[in-house]
Amino acid sequence: MNASEFRRRGKEMVDYMADYLEGIEGRQVFPDVCPGYLRSLIPTTAPQEPETFEAIIEDVEKIIMPGAASPACTELETVMMDWLGKMLQLPEAFLAGEAGEGGGVIQGTASEATLVALLAARTKVTRHLQAASPELTQAAIMEKLVAYASDQAHSSVEKAGLIGGVRLKAIPSDGKFAMRASALQEALERDKAAGLIPFFVVATLGTTSCCSFDNLLEVGPICHEEGLWLHVDAAYAGSAFICPEFRHLLNGVEFADSFNFNPHKWLLVNFDCSAMWVKKRTDLTGAFRLDPVYLRHSHQDSGLITDYRHWQLPLGRRFRSLKMWFVFRMYGVKGLQAYIRKHVQLAHAFEALVRQDARFEICAEVTLGLVCFRLKGSNKLNEALLESINSAKKIHLVPCSLRDRFVLRFAICSRTVELAHVQLAWEHIREMAAAVLRAQGEEKAEIKN
Amino acid sequence: MNASEFRRRGKEMVDYMADYLEGIEGRQVFPDVCPGYLRSLIPTTAPQEPETFEAIIEDVEKIIMPGAASPACTELETVMMDWLGKMLQLPEAFLAGEAGEGGGVIQGTASEATLVALLAARTKVTRHLQAASPELTQAAIMEKLVAYASDQAHSSVEKAGLIGGVRLKAIPSDGKFAMRASALQEALERDKAAGLIPFFVVATLGTTSCCSFDNLLEVGPICHEEGLWLHVDAAYAGSAFICPEFRHLLNGVEFADSFNFNPHKWLLVNFDCSAMWVKKRTDLTGAFRLDPVYLRHSHQDSGLITDYRHWQLPLGRRFRSLKMWFVFRMYGVKGLQAYIRKHVQLAHAFEALVRQDARFEICAEVTLGLVCFRLKGSNKLNEALLESINSAKKIHLVPCSLRDRFVLRFAICSRTVELAHVQLAWEHIREMAAAVLRAQGEEKAEIKN
Ligand SMILES: Cc1ncc(COP(=O)(O)O)c(C=O)c1O
Ligand SMILES: Cc1ncc(COP(=O)(O)O)c(C=O)c1O
Repeated sequence: MNASEFRRRGKEMVDYMADYLEGIEGRQVFPDVCPGYLRSLIPTTAPQEPETFEAIIEDVEKIIMPGAASPACTELETVMMDWLGKMLQLPEAFLAGEAGEGGGVIQGTASEATLVALLAARTKVTRHLQAASPELTQAAIMEKLVAYASDQAHSSVEKAGLIGGVRLKAIPSDGKFAMRASALQEALERDKAAGLIPFFVVATLGTTSCCSFDNLLEVGPICHEEGLWLHVDAAYAGSAFICPEFRHLLNGVEFADSFNFNPHKWLLVNFDCSAMWVKKRTDLTGAFRLDPVYLRHSHQDSGLITDYRHWQLPLGRRFRSLKMWFVFRMYGVKGLQAYIRKHVQLAHAFEALVRQDARFEICAEVTLGLVCFRLKGSNKLNEALLESINSAKKIHLVPCSLRDRFVLRFAICSRTVELAHVQLAWEHIREMAAAVLRAQGEEKAEIKN
Repeated sequence: MNASEFRRRGKEMVDYMADYLEGIEGRQVFPDVCPGYLRSLIPTTAPQEPETFEAIIEDVEKIIMPGAASPACTELETVMMDWLGKMLQLPEAFLAGEAGEGGGVIQGTASEATLVALLAARTKVTRHLQAASPELTQAAIMEKLVAYASDQAHSSVEKAGLIGGVRLKAIPSDGKFAMRASALQEALERDKAAGLIPFFVVATLGTTSCCSFDNLLEVGPICHEEGLWLHVDAAYAGSAFICPEFRHLLNGVEFADSFNFNPHKWLLVNFDCSAMWVKKRTDLTGAFRLDPVYLRHSHQDSGLITDYRHWQLPLGRRFRSLKMWFVFRMYGVKGLQAYIRKHVQLAHAFEALVRQDARFEICAEVTLGLVCFRLKGSNKLNEALLESINSAKKIHLVPCSLRDRFVLRFAICSRTVELAHVQLAWEHIREMAAAVLRAQGEEKAEIKN
C-alpha cells in the first residue's frame, strides 16, 4: 500500500469509526453468535496472493462486527495463530485446529513469552515432584531448579529467571555462537550430580548479537530424554521461517514445548505482537488458572472457549489478531516471503561490500538480515568508528560484543529499504572509517615522535 | 469531540502519517536533543481548561518529532505521570520531578503493576534478610514470605502471588467489605509467631465486586511500622480521585510504597494504560536490572535517563503517554472531573430508582459509578433475573458474589451515557423482574397444587 492508497483507506477507516460511534445506540449490546462461530467463516490458511482492502473490510463487517469484542477477539486470534503456524510449517501439535491440545496466543513481547513458558515449566515440574513426594514444599523444589540458555541468549531470559525465582545457567556457545549438545549435556550432568533439578532450556534461533542459531537438532533430543521443558526463542529470525529455503533453521522445533517469535520485528505487523505456541495448552493454564465469579461465564468448562487470560500475565487484552489478519491478507504469503527474501538479499549485498574492503572483517555468518562486521584492529578503533557513524546521524548502528570483541551490526529492517540505501550506507561507513583510521595513524605518529 | 470533528481530525491525522512516510528520507535517523530536553518544553501541570486540537498537534510537531521515539517516549511518560500524579494530589514522594527518587510508569494492566510491586518487594526483603544473614538462600526466604490482601481483592493479586512463588493470605473484610486494622494485625501476629515473614500488603481502593474501600488510614500505619511493602490497587476507582470531593478516599496513600490505577478504565484514555507510581524507583530497578551491551547507552549512569525497561516485565514499550497527553489537554482537568461527576451522579440516580422499588435491595454502599443490587429473595431468583436480562441483550450486567449472595452490578461506564439511558435500563430491569417473579409465583403455585 503506497502513501496515496494509505490516505484513501485511512480516511475511509476514520469514517467507519465515526459511523460506528454515531450509530452505536442501534447496536445490540451482546452478540448473537455462539462460541466457535468464527472458524467456519474464514479459510483455514492464509492466502498465497494478496487480497484487496475492500475484501478485508467487507469481512470485518460480516464476520467480526457480529461477534463484537468477545468472542471475535479470541476466536480470530486462535485462527490467525493457526494460519501463522501453518505458514511456518510448525508441527501439527502446536496448532489449535478444532480439537488440538496445543495452540497459539499473542503475547506483548518475547520477554513475556519466555517468562510465561518458564512459569508453566516451573509449575509442571513442581506438581510432578510433589505428586511423587507430597512432603516437598514449593520452595524446597525451587531452590534446586535450574534453567539453561546459551551465553548468547537475550537478557530477557535472565530476567525471566530472576522473576521466576530460579537459577539460570549460561551454556558456553561454540565457535559459531551456537549452543551444542556437548556443552548442555555437561552442565546437566554436573548439576544433577550436585543434587540440582534441571527443568527448562531456552534455545535461541537468531541471537540478538549476531543472529546465530542454537543447534536445535542436538538440544531438542536431550531435552526430550531428560524431560526438560524446551522453549524456542526466535524473536527476530522466526519471520524468515515462512520461506521454504529458511525453514530448515527451525528443524528440531518438534522437540519443543513452546515456541515464540515476534511478527512485530520482521513480519510487517505493528508493535506489539509476539506469537507464542505451546503443545499442551493445559500446561499454561495450569500455571495461572483462577476463576473468580465476576470472570465466570456459561461456557466455562465446555472446552469450546479459549480463556486467553490463563495463557498470559495480564488479564485484559487488545484485539491484536486484527493486525495480523490485515497484514496476511494484504500481502499474501508470497508477498511476505518476497519481503523477507529482499531483506536477506540486501544483507548479503552489504556483506559482499564489506568483504571487498580488506580493512574490514565479517564477524559472524550472515544467515538472515543482520551483518556483524568491524575494522580489523582494536576495540578502541571500532568504538571510535561507531561513535563517528552515530554522531553523523545519517545511519544508526547498534553494536554488540562477541567474545570480548566490539562489533558493529548492520541490520536491514526498514519496510522501504532498497539496494541504493545499503550502498549509500556503506559509502558513508567507508568515509567514516577512513577518517578514524587517519586519526589513529596521526595519533600513532605523534606518539612515535 | 463529536463525530464530525472526529471525522475532520482523523483525516488530518491520516494525512500527517502519510506525509511523514513520504518524507521520511529527509529526516535525520537520530535526534539532536539531549536527555532531559522535554521537561522544560511543556507545563508542569495539566491544563484546567480544554485546549484545541490544533494546539496539541502543533506541539507534537515542535516537541515530540524532534525527540523521535527516544528520548521523547520516555520523557513524555515521566512528565505525564507527574501531571496525573498531581491531578490526584499524590504525595510529592511519588513524583519524579527534576530530582525525585520516585516516579510513575505506564504498565499495561493493573495485574502487571501488582506483580511488579510484589517482585520488587520480594527482592527488597530478600536482600535485606541476606544482608543480615548471608547464609540464607533465596528459596529459604521465599518459603517463609507471606503477602496479604483482603478477601475482596481482585484475582490478579492471587495470580501475582502464584507467579512470584509466595504465599498469599486473604484477610477477612468487615461488614462493609473493607480490610481493617484488626483483621490484618491478627494475621500478621499469627504468621510471625509461626515463623513466617510478612512482606507485602495489597490494599484495594474500589474493589471489583462492589467498589468497597480498604481502610488505608488503618492499614497504612501497620505496614509502615512492620516494614511491609504496601501496594495500593485502585484500578477502577483511582480516576475519581482527581475530584476534590473524592480525594479523601485516597487518604493514607502516603504510607504506600506503590500505587496503581487504570486510566483506561475511567479516565477516557484508551486501553491499555495502567498508571503506576513508586516512592523509590531503585526498588523496582533493583529487581529487574540487567544491562547487556546491546542495550547500553552513553547516558547509562548519568541519572539523566529513566530506563523504563527496568520498571516493567516486557522489554519493548509503546508510546502510550501520547494518549494521556491528548486526553488531558483535550478535556482539561475540569472536563475530566465533570465526566467523573456525571457518572457518579448517574449511579446515584440508578440507586434512587432501585430504592423506590420495595422488591429490590441495594447490597453495598454506592460511592462511585457502581450499584450492587438484587431482588429480595433467593440466589436462584437473582440468577434467573440476570439470565433474562442478559438474554434480552438490551443491556448487559456482570454479577458478583457478596458473602455468598448472588448480586447484580449496574456499572456506569460508557462515554456517552445519559440519564435517559439509565432510566430506560431500569424500566427494562423492572419488566424482566416482573416476569421472573411471575414465573416463580406460578412455579410455587404449581408445587402447592
Ligand atoms: C533473540 C531475542 N529474544 C528476545 C528478545 C526480546 O524481545 P522483546 O522486546 O519482544 O521482549 C529479543 C529482542 O531484541 C531478541 O533478539
Ligand atoms: C480492583 C481491581 N484490581 C485489578 C484489576 C485487574 O485489572 P487489569 O485488567 O488492568 O489487570 C481489576 C479489573 O477489573 C480491578 O477491578
